Amino acid sequence: MRTQVGIIGAGPAGLLLSHLLHLQGIESVVLEARSREQIESTIRAGVLEQGTMDLLTETGVGDRMKAEGALHHGFELAFEGKRRRIDLTALTGKSITVYAQHEVLKDLVAARVAAGGSLYFNVSDVSIADIDTEAPSIRFVHDGVEQTLMCDFVIGCDGSQGVSRATIPAARRNDYERVFPFGWFGILVEAPPSSDELIYARHERGFALVSTRSPNVQRMYFQCDPQDSVDNWSDDRIWAEMHARVDSADGQRLIEGRIFQKTIVGMRSFVSTTMQHGRLFLAGDAAHIVPPTGAKGLNLAVSDVRILAAALRAFYREDRTDLLDAYSETALKRIWRAEHFSYWMTRMMHRLDDASPFEQRLQVSELEHVTTSRAAATAMAENYVGAAVV
Amino acid sequence: MRTQVGIIGAGPAGLLLSHLLHLQGIESVVLEARSREQIESTIRAGVLEQGTMDLLTETGVGDRMKAEGALHHGFELAFEGKRRRIDLTALTGKSITVYAQHEVLKDLVAARVAAGGSLYFNVSDVSIADIDTEAPSIRFVHDGVEQTLMCDFVIGCDGSQGVSRATIPAARRNDYERVFPFGWFGILVEAPPSSDELIYARHERGFALVSTRSPNVQRMYFQCDPQDSVDNWSDDRIWAEMHARVDSADGQRLIEGRIFQKTIVGMRSFVSTTMQHGRLFLAGDAAHIVPPTGAKGLNLAVSDVRILAAALRAFYREDRTDLLDAYSETALKRIWRAEHFSYWMTRMMHRLDDASPFEQRLQVSELEHVTTSRAAATAMAENYVGAAVV
Repeated sequence: MRTQVGIIGAGPAGLLLSHLLHLQGIESVVLEARSREQIESTIRAGVLEQGTMDLLTETGVGDRMKAEGALHHGFELAFEGKRRRIDLTALTGKSITVYAQHEVLKDLVAARVAAGGSLYFNVSDVSIADIDTEAPSIRFVHDGVEQTLMCDFVIGCDGSQGVSRATIPAARRNDYERVFPFGWFGILVEAPPSSDELIYARHERGFALVSTRSPNVQRMYFQCDPQDSVDNWSDDRIWAEMHARVDSADGQRLIEGRIFQKTIVGMRSFVSTTMQHGRLFLAGDAAHIVPPTGAKGLNLAVSDVRILAAALRAFYREDRTDLLDAYSETALKRIWRAEHFSYWMTRMMHRLDDASPFEQRLQVSELEHVTTSRAAATAMAENYVGAAVV
Repeated sequence: MRTQVGIIGAGPAGLLLSHLLHLQGIESVVLEARSREQIESTIRAGVLEQGTMDLLTETGVGDRMKAEGALHHGFELAFEGKRRRIDLTALTGKSITVYAQHEVLKDLVAARVAAGGSLYFNVSDVSIADIDTEAPSIRFVHDGVEQTLMCDFVIGCDGSQGVSRATIPAARRNDYERVFPFGWFGILVEAPPSSDELIYARHERGFALVSTRSPNVQRMYFQCDPQDSVDNWSDDRIWAEMHARVDSADGQRLIEGRIFQKTIVGMRSFVSTTMQHGRLFLAGDAAHIVPPTGAKGLNLAVSDVRILAAALRAFYREDRTDLLDAYSETALKRIWRAEHFSYWMTRMMHRLDDASPFEQRLQVSELEHVTTSRAAATAMAENYVGAAVV
């Protein structure tokens, strides 16, 4: 089997890249370890930056997002019993859309299938060879048959645990990591929305986030011990915790409902400071992880493949390699910005048991600042909508 | 002996308060443990915020500051071998003056002496009594004679180690403290200025600051181990360290000169969250300490006594106690803002041996951000010139 660009992973990075390449007349094949049903139902992030919205719309895969996603012009910061709004649109002229990641994936898979794209689900035993040459290849097993995909480039979009990053020689890599001593307890709830906009709450008991999925289903999170078990949390205990952290002093109360999913996820920051080696390029979670506080994970995957698609276009159309050579450096500018923002949001909003009481008290000073200084609010809003990197 | 307001400490807080009260027709007596020569020669901070400059000018003690101080409209941030300017005036409409603290003290002492104010230097054995009553008093020894100063109010401006804060019952106090694991090595140098403006440098070897005192004398600092001794640092070793941290890749080199003073100071953040008890009120370092990175120490002392002078005026002129009752709460708004800003500047600029490589790398992301986003630069500049609290 042969193609121009071999893509490992059918997450947002891999599928969107395949879609963008197709629009530029470049062939690709996407290999995915999970089934189509799995990727179309695994619930992940859901905040799309303005730039992500624009790209999906411009490339013809934004119709359902526009129809079913919720356009938000701001969010709420809750602390010290009060709520203060960050007006994203007034501060930056931009906005965000709340639209679940797996819905984006459905739209991208549908577009690739409709265009006759090559997608292989349920592949196993993936390995990458000859990335130091101009003829790299990917070996994999599909339907019990071992196959080799010959290609010009291999793009690793296979997430943090995938084979791609590990294929870059360790001596060439320089990884940065920070594991946070807390996680997020996530619930899905059958209830009407408690708020028109997302609520990020800082409370002495810990962080909480009130998000939304639809008029009838809400998404909520609260900071927890990442080693805890969902079995320790009855519905009553969960609601008591959420009310304590989110309800405001002036009587704004969270609306309860039937909880039909409970999960606990750990949180970490990670950056691989080379995202390329020879003919192998990394994109999305394969190269970097952010804690979910800043809602940047999906958006970074999108910005990586946007840069990569332009670089591959320059290679095939104009025989230029400069954009490919500069890919890692170009992408890392935005990645470090998002890493810093996500870390900053995380440290400002979470209960920091490893910090001194002085540093914990500074969270309130900083929240007062970003909600009263227009300049500070603008800096935060620019980062949130994804306009902070030129 | 009797007065209306008994002030302990002839630092910027005590002397300026006495001056402001005098202009409002309120009597005060200032008691100071050191000699006049000592306070007029001990070298401390030197950056005056716009509001501090304005207050000194409006109250008639700003002439020498205007003539001899240096008005600055910006400063430089040096990192990764480059220098980027924060244009304070373009971003905020305000500026700062570099004018040494002991020069401010000379001007204030001269003004108090000229107005016939009561200043007692070289006092010892100071103690405060009856702060829970309307007739508190201060006992002290002067010229070998024990004396008692009867007053309506006692104002503790006697710094972090003074008796005033310790006089507030421990059960009423709630202190926040953070000691930093590094200090500043300060030098005074006979040389022309290396730069028109202050240079704050972030380097892998540690922080450095290039300031100025006059056309012929420069003030420089570099991050060091607070337990180190100046004896370990030859002039050659100091210059090698300063060049490594401050010189820019494009050839801007620090100008050397004869080093005639070497000191090491520790760094900490501290806030006492009550600044009052009965008829005792704390101002300046007696209530709070900031690391010097944000240049806020002197300016916070000024803002404390400005609030206190207005509150005492309301008491004597209008028989109102509401402003006095609210003093601590009012002052703490600005104090927490400055504490956060000073901590933030400190963490962004210093080598953090206690942080992960990931967090150390985020310093560069943050410096890129504050030097490229106008909103982020404005938020920083507002804090620096002292305009961040309304």
